[in-house]
This record gives sequence, structure tokens and C-alpha cells, in this order.
Amino acid sequence: MEQLEAQLVRWRRDFHQYPELGFLEMRTATIVADMLETLGYTIQIGNEVMAPDYCMGKPGAEETHRHLEWAKENGAVPKYLDAVSEGFTGIVATLETGREGPIIAYRVDMDALPITETSAEGHVPVAEDFRSTTSNMHACGHDAHTAIGLGLATKIMRQKDQLSGVIKIIFQPAEEGTRGARSMVEAGVADGVDYFIASHIGMDVPDGHFIAANNGFLATSKMDVTFTGIASHAGSRPEEGRNALLAAANAATNLYTVPRHSDGATRINVGELHAGSGRNIIADHAVMKIETRGETSEINNHVKGQAQAIIEGAAKMHGAEYDIELVGEGESAECSSEIAQVLKETAEAEGLHSVMKSDASSGSEDATFFINAVQQNGGQATYCIFGTELAAGHHNEAFDINEGSMISAVEVLYRSAVELSGQ
Amino acid sequence: MEQLEAQLVRWRRDFHQYPELGFLEMRTATIVADMLETLGYTIQIGNEVMAPDYCMGKPGAEETHRHLEWAKENGAVPKYLDAVSEGFTGIVATLETGREGPIIAYRVDMDALPITETSAEGHVPVAEDFRSTTSNMHACGHDAHTAIGLGLATKIMRQKDQLSGVIKIIFQPAEEGTRGARSMVEAGVADGVDYFIASHIGMDVPDGHFIAANNGFLATSKMDVTFTGIASHAGSRPEEGRNALLAAANAATNLYTVPRHSDGATRINVGELHAGSGRNIIADHAVMKIETRGETSEINNHVKGQAQAIIEGAAKMHGAEYDIELVGEGESAECSSEIAQVLKETAEAEGLHSVMKSDASSGSEDATFFINAVQQNGGQATYCIFGTELAAGHHNEAFDINEGSMISAVEVLYRSAVELSGQ
Amino acid sequence: MEQLEAQLVRWRRDFHQYPELGFLEMRTATIVADMLETLGYTIQIGNEVMAPDYCMGKPGAEETHRHLEWAKENGAVPKYLDAVSEGFTGIVATLETGREGPIIAYRVDMDALPITETSAEGHVPVAEDFRSTTSNMHACGHDAHTAIGLGLATKIMRQKDQLSGVIKIIFQPAEEGTRGARSMVEAGVADGVDYFIASHIGMDVPDGHFIAANNGFLATSKMDVTFTGIASHAGSRPEEGRNALLAAANAATNLYTVPRHSDGATRINVGELHAGSGRNIIADHAVMKIETRGETSEINNHVKGQAQAIIEGAAKMHGAEYDIELVGEGESAECSSEIAQVLKETAEAEGLHSVMKSDASSGSEDATFFINAVQQNGGQATYCIFGTELAAGHHNEAFDINEGSMISAVEVLYRSAVELSGQ
Amino acid sequence: MEQLEAQLVRWRRDFHQYPELGFLEMRTATIVADMLETLGYTIQIGNEVMAPDYCMGKPGAEETHRHLEWAKENGAVPKYLDAVSEGFTGIVATLETGREGPIIAYRVDMDALPITETSAEGHVPVAEDFRSTTSNMHACGHDAHTAIGLGLATKIMRQKDQLSGVIKIIFQPAEEGTRGARSMVEAGVADGVDYFIASHIGMDVPDGHFIAANNGFLATSKMDVTFTGIASHAGSRPEEGRNALLAAANAATNLYTVPRHSDGATRINVGELHAGSGRNIIADHAVMKIETRGETSEINNHVKGQAQAIIEGAAKMHGAEYDIELVGEGESAECSSEIAQVLKETAEAEGLHSVMKSDASSGSEDATFFINAVQQNGGQATYCIFGTELAAGHHNEAFDINEGSMISAVEVLYRSAVELSGQ
Repeated sequence: MEQLEAQLVRWRRDFHQYPELGFLEMRTATIVADMLETLGYTIQIGNEVMAPDYCMGKPGAEETHRHLEWAKENGAVPKYLDAVSEGFTGIVATLETGREGPIIAYRVDMDALPITETSAEGHVPVAEDFRSTTSNMHACGHDAHTAIGLGLATKIMRQKDQLSGVIKIIFQPAEEGTRGARSMVEAGVADGVDYFIASHIGMDVPDGHFIAANNGFLATSKMDVTFTGIASHAGSRPEEGRNALLAAANAATNLYTVPRHSDGATRINVGELHAGSGRNIIADHAVMKIETRGETSEINNHVKGQAQAIIEGAAKMHGAEYDIELVGEGESAECSSEIAQVLKETAEAEGLHSVMKSDASSGSEDATFFINAVQQNGGQATYCIFGTELAAGHHNEAFDINEGSMISAVEVLYRSAVELSGQ
Repeated sequence: MEQLEAQLVRWRRDFHQYPELGFLEMRTATIVADMLETLGYTIQIGNEVMAPDYCMGKPGAEETHRHLEWAKENGAVPKYLDAVSEGFTGIVATLETGREGPIIAYRVDMDALPITETSAEGHVPVAEDFRSTTSNMHACGHDAHTAIGLGLATKIMRQKDQLSGVIKIIFQPAEEGTRGARSMVEAGVADGVDYFIASHIGMDVPDGHFIAANNGFLATSKMDVTFTGIASHAGSRPEEGRNALLAAANAATNLYTVPRHSDGATRINVGELHAGSGRNIIADHAVMKIETRGETSEINNHVKGQAQAIIEGAAKMHGAEYDIELVGEGESAECSSEIAQVLKETAEAEGLHSVMKSDASSGSEDATFFINAVQQNGGQATYCIFGTELAAGHHNEAFDINEGSMISAVEVLYRSAVELSGQ
Repeated sequence: MEQLEAQLVRWRRDFHQYPELGFLEMRTATIVADMLETLGYTIQIGNEVMAPDYCMGKPGAEETHRHLEWAKENGAVPKYLDAVSEGFTGIVATLETGREGPIIAYRVDMDALPITETSAEGHVPVAEDFRSTTSNMHACGHDAHTAIGLGLATKIMRQKDQLSGVIKIIFQPAEEGTRGARSMVEAGVADGVDYFIASHIGMDVPDGHFIAANNGFLATSKMDVTFTGIASHAGSRPEEGRNALLAAANAATNLYTVPRHSDGATRINVGELHAGSGRNIIADHAVMKIETRGETSEINNHVKGQAQAIIEGAAKMHGAEYDIELVGEGESAECSSEIAQVLKETAEAEGLHSVMKSDASSGSEDATFFINAVQQNGGQATYCIFGTELAAGHHNEAFDINEGSMISAVEVLYRSAVELSGQ
Repeated sequence: MEQLEAQLVRWRRDFHQYPELGFLEMRTATIVADMLETLGYTIQIGNEVMAPDYCMGKPGAEETHRHLEWAKENGAVPKYLDAVSEGFTGIVATLETGREGPIIAYRVDMDALPITETSAEGHVPVAEDFRSTTSNMHACGHDAHTAIGLGLATKIMRQKDQLSGVIKIIFQPAEEGTRGARSMVEAGVADGVDYFIASHIGMDVPDGHFIAANNGFLATSKMDVTFTGIASHAGSRPEEGRNALLAAANAATNLYTVPRHSDGATRINVGELHAGSGRNIIADHAVMKIETRGETSEINNHVKGQAQAIIEGAAKMHGAEYDIELVGEGESAECSSEIAQVLKETAEAEGLHSVMKSDASSGSEDATFFINAVQQNGGQATYCIFGTELAAGHHNEAFDINEGSMISAVEVLYRSAVELSGQ
């Protein structure tokens, strides 16, 4: 046991040093795949488990290729590189116990953020020499999630005689920006799953505490909007222009006028707007980064629909073409109480202070695609949180966790497999 | 001659007392028709000379009917009332001389304005007891134009042996708002016309002065815009509304952003906007009165096209339906120099101080539809101005003319017929 | 007892036939004052109990005077007309029991709505011949509230030996639009009050049911906004205008962009916008009717503050002057549980099915000014609801109540006085 | 003479190879200064002839310093580098003839554009190996202007016995963007000048043609606008943000609503807008590049004033701070006919086909500051154009001139000095 605890730390620190953005987790995924196969799992990787059409906000070919070169030079396992070379970096590890029983699936995520890690001396990764080697950073704990996933895989394989049915461990790319889960669900990864558990560490839950069912995820849609007009010299031929900047400015203003919804909270934001190429030229190009949120998927879809009409209308007003690219999406979800109850008890048995559920608003998550898909097929699903002490908030350059929390997470998840496989 | 001069004054004062708005000139038209027929003209009246589909900004059935009752009680000639009862109040009087020659047409307009005439003692119509009996007013001189048209008809009939070819005198409704001319042109009134002369008195040209060719008319389109959304309680169900007020507000703002045109001056204005029915209701209805102008018809059409796109886009943005009703339109026009030269010389012969042409911007006029149609068919056309002393500017409640100018106008126009019929 | 029940119906039907809008309740108030004085109450009326500066959305002098004439001709009691002739129509009736005890105050409201009552045969006021005689209507039950207030006054006076301390019954004008309460509070009407009870009938609470503490009122501000620009001819001198329509259109659009609030629900609406006077004139005048709401007074004030900045900025953008008139305001409030408990028990004793409290959102109410003032001075206050069967929803032209509910309300309120005066 | 013609080409080609942007003409200015001093002129350089406060759109210290290093390595004359090291790169060369006479000043400009020159084989600078060595380019002919200025200086010094009074040759920085002239005028460079001549080559005037007085410059103002708001997480704390993107979007839309002017053409453009830093953050920063134009300085100032009000109002609406930096400005100007007549005759004497004046709209120029200043002091001033064959339009990557035109320009300008010094 102590050995696994130490291994979790080694894994996590390795991933921490080599953070990779969503759909670019090539080093991470090939290392994970290699370990899983070595452990004895059947693995599926790449577009076997990801539907390309549903990858949202995926980097372009050039950036993907550039990162492939980086991965090659930074420790990726060559054997699996072909499978992930186009950015389809998801993995599903499957263990058929040979005994009749349910299909139980665990999801972890692997991607990092475009944040430069602090180099402050007091920051543990600096002090203990595993600070990120790039300008990206694991500032949300997905390095720990990946390590926990590997720890769980190790523990399960060791104790597979305790289990029946089928165990799947899902390593998902691109959770940041809620971009990757849907492509795995659309590829069939959730099909037939009876029990599904996603988990996260931290999230302002204290060390030693556990939440069995976290429901407060807002549905969200993230969109990149482009307006294309016609350039013209603003002094000599103003009438020949079609002003993409004006289309975007009107879209931006009116997006904030989408009405409140009486069924629950909504949000809409135009976070960025960039238009035009010269002071005396009618702008022929404008881009905006926007996002909508809703307390439920239905509310979010209502807001999203109105946002699309506003963008279309604004383009029409100024004779511009428009394009809306969906670059991320998350649903709302309601965890299943039965499986949450099992987890709560399991966590208590492990000595964690457990709470059945939280409805507090807690951002967006695309594990909700898995949860909703499993529930629609008659399965049970939940999203649980393992508390840990944080050095700084999520997405902060000084983010860090208490690495000791990882082993508890592995234990609770492993025991949940034992409990659920007997049901 | 002196008798005709006195008659012009009597006619003009009678029309002045009973002003009628555009497409409602029922009393005026039936009196005119009666006189013309009595003089010996062949007359065409009503929708014989007006294409209903091209009447713009025509009052509704109810208002038309109400005015018909008024006309009956205020001196309309019953014999012609049927022909004009639906508001098609145009008349064309034709004299076939029996001698070969060109078709020469003169246009006068008959409508008044929704302005309440001053009751100041110094105002001549007050002092001499012919002030308007209604809350409308002949504040642009069309009462004098109608009298001049009758005077011209009288003079021509008396001297018809001097003339050859065909003479037409066109009494047009609804020049204000540039609404009536097009329906007469579309009904064929300009067909075959070799020489066309429209005239106006006043327009800041001094008494005794004459402009043979006035070119400065801006092309214009006048539109009534309606947005229809869906009402909803703004507090309890904001998401169910489709906000017509927001659509209109955005349309209004963006209409002013229609770009300048490098080929000439443009104008656009949203003169009125009315939306909504209660403080706490999402507005389901909004109306706007707008107009565009351009130094040429082409420029105006460019502005109008962009305005329509803006209205459509604004409606789309907020899920509203929209309707654009064209309620008035005028073209730009360039007078023919040959006919203008004839007029200039004729006016000089009558002792007027004459100028060949003016390009100064001078509002909009729908006689331009006649001018362009005649020129397109190979004819010549002009728009001339007879100066007169004004008591106050056009469209002012104290507007009044020097009635003595009318007889010169009749003389010049009559002599132009003599000159042109010999060509 | 049966006699009082019949009397309640007579009073209510009389008020129903003569509905009066807010700050114009002259007939109602003088009749009420006369009855109260006859019963033996000390009455205060007019600006003794209303601070003129805090009357919001009060009709102008002309309309007030016109209504005074109407009241004179329709049964107002002349003796009190002077006191209410300027529209200060509030009354406070006071009974000093002579025994030591608390000050207990009851508030009822008296105003009607600008709604034309249905003339459908099935509508009880039609069938039983007490339909409104004007184009206004008691479509919210304030006629019944006034009757209940008189019934309560009658009952209390009859049984005054059962009571100690001081009893006040407050007849408030202009609750619709949340306009009248604040002026009474500012005049000191809530000063020293130990127990305060406002009540409403209906509000979707079924017959025989009672809610002791209704907390769900949204804070609200209602504002009339005026923009004043400079008119100019849009064709000939566009640069000389200062476009009030453009200022208003921008204000309207941007008011809807006031951000959501993370502490609770918000609302904002521009219900009406009227601008401009002619198609070809730059508009020099625009008015808007707007309202803000917030789940708490703090949230509403935040929204209101941003709305004011937007209006100021929009005026500045287009060189217009602006004016914001506050024409109505309501606060949020939290009822005191102790007094609510007393009421709940009292209602149960009367056989009503009672509920302690409701937090459901239920529009806005200016009784909240009284509630907050009383609580700030250390008193207790609540807002209770007496269920009744409604023929149609509040503010509907077919609104009607079950008149039988009035006597229960009188009984419960009377008994609350007994209970509270003993505390 | 042939020698000078060859020298002009050498000079022009040298400057062409080393183009420098406005306020960075360090290599050019030091070479020019060195030649002028060598020729015998008294020179003033740097902030002796430029008022720092009136340099508009001047690059920052870092860029200026970086370019200084570049200039050092690319042929700048060290002796003068100190004087221009902070970007004050103007020079005035003065010749006192010692004979009584007028002060005659000639202005040439020296700066290049941020355009990458074509590398097409047919492009003469490519074929003859003097293509720009940097990513900037002399695409407007200022390399030729500088050469003409040096040629004129040479010729004048050679023939100084023909002249009386004082001759000044002004080498101005940063004409592109109309940024540099005003600082020289404010430093007193135009003081006391009796005759002022600015000249340009090309501008669609054919080879061998000459325009003595070009009047069609539009007045213009170029502004960089910054909005500063307050960032906040758009999901969790939307109410705490102050949205700079919304302020900018509203400013942009409304800037296009600045009314047309009845006295002459206007233009306004928002060429660029950049706002925000992340999809889910309320944007706290936005920048816009805008420009206004007017047929006269008065009209432009009217538009500029309204633009400033719109920017201020938009900031106010959304609680943002704003800053407007004037980064370029040009006036309108009317050339003096007397001096233009002298030039026309001089050019004719040189065999050029000469036109007295052109009023055609021709962009903006800051030589207008010199022209207006000289005229205000009672002097005469003009802006003349020497035609030349262009390979492509001004500001095009393939722009090139007929180098043979330069010697005519030198001759005409020299002879004008002779003519004017005798007046």
C-alpha cells in the first residue's frame, strides 16, 4: 500500500512537469496506455473511443503536429503515438472479470491549462523540483486525476478476484472548456454502463471530506463567432464596405440583452472581440469568444438559441457573413442517489467525513454528458469530490494539492467497485 | 384678362378655405373636373388615371369614408363623387386640337398639409376672410397651383386655335410626402408625352423671378416600419417575450450607421418610434417612421437597400416579425435643357427675370417620376419655379403668397404651349 | 354578525361601482372618513398622513382637478373633500382604548386599475348590477380590502372593551404601481407601531386558506425617463440636431445589458418608448417607462444604479438632456415570525387552513415600506393572505372574488387585535 | 545638370533601401543633415524645430531606442544621432543670402510606410537591386521627396547669387498619419515665412503634368481610444464587472451615427476594435482606432466633438474609464492664388503641362498646418503636385515612380525661388 502511495506521487509529479493542453495529451496518453496494457487491461485508444465530429474546440492540424514533435522529444511512448497523432487522445481500459456482473466505469481527465506556473520559492513544485517545464500548467489537478486513474487500475488488477462484471477506466482528454467528453459518449463509451463515477479533487472541499453527489453544474455552451464583411477605404469608398466590426459590436451589445429566465439562473458573456486591420479601412473581419450558461440544459439551450438569432441578425444588418463554431459544451446533470449512497458509505468506511450531495453552483463539467447518457440507458451515475488542501484556487498559477489525498481517492473508488460489482 | 386674374384669386381662395389632404382631395377634384368638363375638356378621373397598387401612404378606408362625408357637406360636385370616393382623386383633362403636333402635358398638384393655419390678424386669409375652415392648411401653395391649372385650362380653351397637337393638364393628388405621382405614371398618364412641364410657386424665388429648370431634387423613400413580437410579463416570464421594442431600438440606432456615399450626399432619419403598451410588459409592437434621401435615385436606392437589411436583421435578432410599407417616394431628375430654354425665353417675354437652371438642393418632389418617364420615352421635361413673395416659409402656419403671381404663371405656361406646339 | 357580512358586501359593491385610480380615491376616502368618524375614531386625512415629496407617480394638477369634479358628482362626502382635493387621499383612523398596551396597525389599500371591466353576462358584477360605472376597474380586490377595513373598524369599535393599547387602521392610496405607501411612512404613520399587519385577498390562495407571512415580494423601482434633444430638419440641417430618439434607443438597448446578479434574481424592462414628432425631423423628445426588480432591495438598488448610469451615458452620447422620475418603488421584506405565528393560530381558530409562510415570488408591494419601518423601530410586522375563489386572475377584466371571504378576514384580523393587545 | 539628375537617383535609391517610419527617420535625417551642412546651410535639427507636445502618434521609448540601434548599424551619420535619438527627426536648413528679400520655405517629407515591398521580378527596385531591406517601404514617394529636397538644396547653393532674402528647406518627419507637421509649426518653423511651397509627386497626375494648387485635402483627426473597466468572472460574479467591451461596442456603433453635415462631406470610421482577455471574464480593457474627416477643418471639428461625446457617454453607460489619444491630425486648406500663379508659370516655362488648381478630394495632408500658419501671418502658401508615371497606386506594395520626374521638380522649385525672391 505504501508503495502505491509513493507511486501516485511519482506519477502525478511526472505529469505535472509535462502538462499538455486538451486534445494534445499525447505524452500523457501514451504513457497511460503503456502502463494500462502492461497491467493487463484491454485498451482502446484514439478515434476508437472518440467521435471526431464531436470534438469541440480542437486545435488545428499545425498546432497538433507541432505538439506531436514536442511529445516525441519529451518522453511519449512511441508505440502508441500513431493512435494519438491527430489529437484523439482518449483511452478506455477494460477488465473483463469473467464473472457475471454490472459494467462499472470510472472517468478521469488528463488535460492542463495555458497558465504559466509560478516560480515562487515557497511553491512545492518549485521547492521539490517538479515545476512545469512549459508555459502550460496542471492548475486544476488533472495530473492527480490521471495518477488516481492509474492507481485505481493498479489496485483493481491486483484485487480482481474480489470483483465481478466488467470494469472500465476512462481517461478523457480536453475537460477544460468542456470539449472532450461528448466525443467519447458519441463514440459509444457510455453504452451499456450500469454504474458511472466521475471524480474531482479539491473544489473547496476540505481535506478528509467527501461529497458523494455534486449536482450544481451549470449547462454551458462556448462559441467562437466570426463575421466576414467586405473591406473598403473608409474615406474614399465607404459605401462599398460591409462592416464586420459593426456587425460584431451590435451582436456583442445585444447578446447581453438575452432575457432572464424565470426557471433558473442564466449567464451570457462576450469575453473577447477583435475586429479590423487598419484605422482607415472598413473592417472585413471580426471574431468573438462567447459563452452561455443555464441552470439546466434546457435553460442554456434557450439562451444559446437566442444568442444564435442575435448573431445571425447582426450579420444580416450589416451585410456580413457569419460563422458560429461550438468549441465547448456542458450539460446540467442530477446524480443518481443510489450509487451516491454507496459512495458515501464507502467513503465513511475509509474515514472520510462524507456528505450525500451538494447543489451549490460549481461551474461547468462535461462529465455530465456521461452521467446523462448512462442514466438515459437505465444506469446510475454520480460525480463525487475528494477534498484536499489547496495552496491556491483552481486555475491559479500557485495551485497545488495535498498529494496525500490521492491514496484515499484510490481506496474509495476501488471499494466502490467491490460494492457495486456485487449489486 | 383682368377677369381671369380675378377668377384665379376666387378659385385659389375657395380651395384655400377647404384644404384636403393627399388622396382625399374629393371636393377639390370634383370641382376641378366639373369646370374642366364645362370648358370642353375630355376628362379622365379616379383609377382611370391612377394605378391603385402604386398609391403610397394612402389613408385607410375608414378615414377615406369619413372624408367623403365631409366633402359631400362642403361643396363637392355630386356628379363626380363616385369616381373619387375611394380616394383616387387624380384628373387628366385632354384637348385634342385636331391639328398635328406634339403631346404637351402640364402638371399641378392639389393637396394640403396637416397644419393648423394661424389666426393672427395680420395674416391675409384671416383679414380677408378665407382662412382654412379645418385643421388642415394649404401651406405650400397647392391651392394656387390648382387655380393656375384651371386658369391655364381656361386660357388654352379660349385660344385653342393657336395650338396644335394635344394638350393635357394633369391634376395630381398627394404630392406632399411624394406619394401620388407614381400611381399616375404607372397608370400611363405620361405615355406618349412629348413635352412635360411641372411648376411650383415660391420656393424662395423672389417675385418676378423665374427658374426654368430646377434640378436639385433629392431622391427619397419614406417608409413606415412595424415590428411585431410576443408580449410577456417582464417580471414573471421574461423568457417568453419577443421584444419588438428592442428590435426597433436596434434598427433605429443602426439605420443611422448606413455609410456615407462617395458619389453624393445621403440622408437617413428615424423621425418617430413608438413601442410598447405597459411598463411591465415585454413590448410586442413597435412602429417607426423613417426616410432616406440621396443626391441621385441610385444613391437613395443604395441607402434604402441597406436600411431594409438593417430592419430585417434587427427583427431577426429579437425574434420579431417586421413589415416595411413604402409610404412615399421621389426620384432625382435632370431637366431637359431644350424645353427649359423655351420656357426661359417665354418667361423673359412675359417680363420675368429668368434663370436657366438651379442645382441647389431643394427637398424632394414626385413630379420627378413624370420627368424621368417622359425623358425615357424620348420626350423633354422640366420643372420650373415662379417666384412670389411669401408671408412665411413653406409648411409654416403663416404661409401666404402674392396672388398677383398666378396670372404670370398662367401666361408663361400658356405661351409655352403655343411655342412647343409649333415645334 | 350576519348584518356585518351583508354590510361588507354592500360596501364592496359600492366601491366596485365607483373605482378610483391611485391618488384620486376622493369619493372612496371621503366615504371611508365619514364612516370612521361616525363610528367614533379619531381620523387624520390628507397631507397630515402623507408626505407630498414622497408621493410617486402622482397625477398632475389638471387630472386631479378633473377627478375632483367627478367625485363631487358621484357621491363623495363634501365635508372631507377639501382635505383630499389635491390627491392626498390617505386616512388613518385611531382608537385609543385608554388601557395600556401596544400600538397595533392594520393597513388596507383603496385604489383601482385603468382596466375596462368586462360586460360579459356571466360576470357577477354584471349579473348583479354593480359593474364599474367608469373605464377603470377594481380588478385587484382593493374594493374588498376597503370594505374589510371598514368591517374591522366596526367590529373593533363594538368590542373595544376587549382591547387595550392603541388601534390604528390605515387606508392607503395608490398601492398599484407601489406609489403610495412610502409617503405615509415618511409622514410618520408607522412611527411607534408595535404590531403591523397588511393583508391581501386572493393571490392564487384557495378559498378557506390563509398564509400568515408572505415574503416573496421583489424590490422594484419604476421610472419615467425623458430625453430632450434639439429638433432640426433631417434633410437640410442634420448636424444641428441633438437626437433624443437615438439617446432613448441606445438607453433602451443597454438597459437590458445590466448584468445578472449572483446574489439573486433581477429583472429590467423598458415597457414603453415614444419618440419624435415627424418623419423628417430629428427627434427632440423621447420618453420611456422602465422598471427594475431585485430579489432584495440591495440587488434592486444595484440594478437601479446601473440603469441610471446607462441613461445618463446615453443622453451624453447624443448631446441630450435627461430626466428620471421615480414613479413607484417597493422594497423586499421579511415578515416577523412571532406575529405571523399569532396570525396563523388565530386563522386556524377561525377554521382556515393556515400556512406559516410563503417565499414564492409574488410581484411587488409597497406595504414593504411599512414592514421595514416598523421592524427597524423594534416592532413586528407581517403581510398575510386570505384565500378566495377568483373568477379570473388579478388585473384581468373578469376578475371577481368570493365575497364570503371578507367576513373571515374581518374576524381573523379582529381576533389578532385581541391577541396582540394582550401581549 | 546631368550630374544632379544622376545624384537624385542615387539618393532616392539609397533612401528607398532604408525606409524609416514616422518619428524614426534617424538614418535619413542624419544623412540629410550631414549633406546640408556640407553644402553650407545652417541647420537646425531635433527638438529645436519640433515641439514635443505636438508630436502625435509618436512611437514609444522602447521602439524608438530599438530603431536607434538599427540606424547606427545601417549608415546613420553618428555626428547627428544624439539630436535625433529620441525620435525628433525634423531638420530645417537655412540659407541667408545677405540680400534683402522674403523668407521662402520649401517642405519635403521623409517617412515610409509599414508595408512589405513586393519581390516581383518586374518591380524596378527588385530588378535594379534597391528593394527595401526591411519590412517597411517607401510606397508613397517620400524617398523621392527627400532626394528632391537635397537636389533643391544643391541647386540653390550653387546659384545662390541669383537669390535674395532667406531660403529655408524643411525636412519633415511623420507625414503618414498626419502626425509630424504640427509639431514643427508649433516650434515656430513657419514663423515669418513669406512664401511656402509643399510638393508631392504622383497622386494620379500624369508624367509631365503639374498642378500648382491642390485644395482638396480633407481635414482629419486620428484617435486611439482606450476603455478601462473592471474584470470579473462572468459566471460567478457578473455584477462586479464593469464591461469595457460593452462600452467599446456601443461607442463603435454610435460613432457611425454622427450626423451628416449640410456644409460638406464627412467621414468617420472605427477601423479596429480589440477587447477582452478570456471567454469567461468580463472584459476590463478595450481599444479602438478611429478617424474622422471633414471637407473643412470646421466640419471635421464638429464630427470630432460629437465623437468625443459618444465615447464619453459609452464609457459612462458601462462604468468604464476612457482615454482618447490624438495620434494624427490634418487641416483643410485653401492655397494662395498668387504664389500658385507663379508656380504655374514657372512649370510651364520648364515645359510641364500646368493646371492652376484642383479641388478634387485627395485624402489628408499635414502640410496644411504650414499653409494655414503662413497665411495667418500674411504670407502665401501652396501645395503643388508633380506628375509622374506610377507602377502601382500610392501605398501599394508595387508602388514605384518614374525617377526622371525628380529633376523637373528640382528645376521648377529652384526657379520659383528665383521668381519669388525677386518679388
